[in-house]
Amino acid sequence: MFVIITYDVGEKRVNKVRKKLKQYLMWTQNSVFEGEISEGKLQKCLFEVSKIIKKEEDSIYVYRINFPAQVKKDIMGIVKSYEDIFI
Amino acid sequence: MFVIITYDVGEKRVNKVRKKLKQYLMWTQNSVFEGEISEGKLQKCLFEVSKIIKKEEDSIYVYRINFPAQVKKDIMGIVKSYEDIFI
Repeated sequence: MFVIITYDVGEKRVNKVRKKLKQYLMWTQNSVFEGEISEGKLQKCLFEVSKIIKKEEDSIYVYRINFPAQVKKDIMGIVKSYEDIFI
Repeated sequence: MFVIITYDVGEKRVNKVRKKLKQYLMWTQNSVFEGEISEGKLQKCLFEVSKIIKKEEDSIYVYRINFPAQVKKDIMGIVKSYEDIFI
């Protein structure tokens, strides 16, 4: 399964959310992670994220696409190396 | 076709990019637009966006999924009304 996760999280919690998502997926843009993952691992990931966020303030969007081959990804402009700038 | 567009654009250009994307897609999160769109309209949209951004600084990610029924979307936390706060 291919997953795209986007987040809009308060500043105080954003690093924790990123660290957690980074354990499961690839950081591709400022507030976007993506990757292939099993439903079980995704559930674990989302459960852990749910313990970090404030549900009345933050939002996490999860797009599941069953067949990764169905997803075509294009990039316009630069590809930022978030893995590098992330401490 | 279902499309998810995420952007990471310099502050000076971000409002212009949002306004342009809003003409074609639905604003769902801080830096995320989504929606069903034809390839022709998407090409027109991306061409117009390409004239706004600085390709050496900004980045636009485009995820195309041929069959919208393949996409399952879940939201954790709040659903922000970006349409409302957008002027």
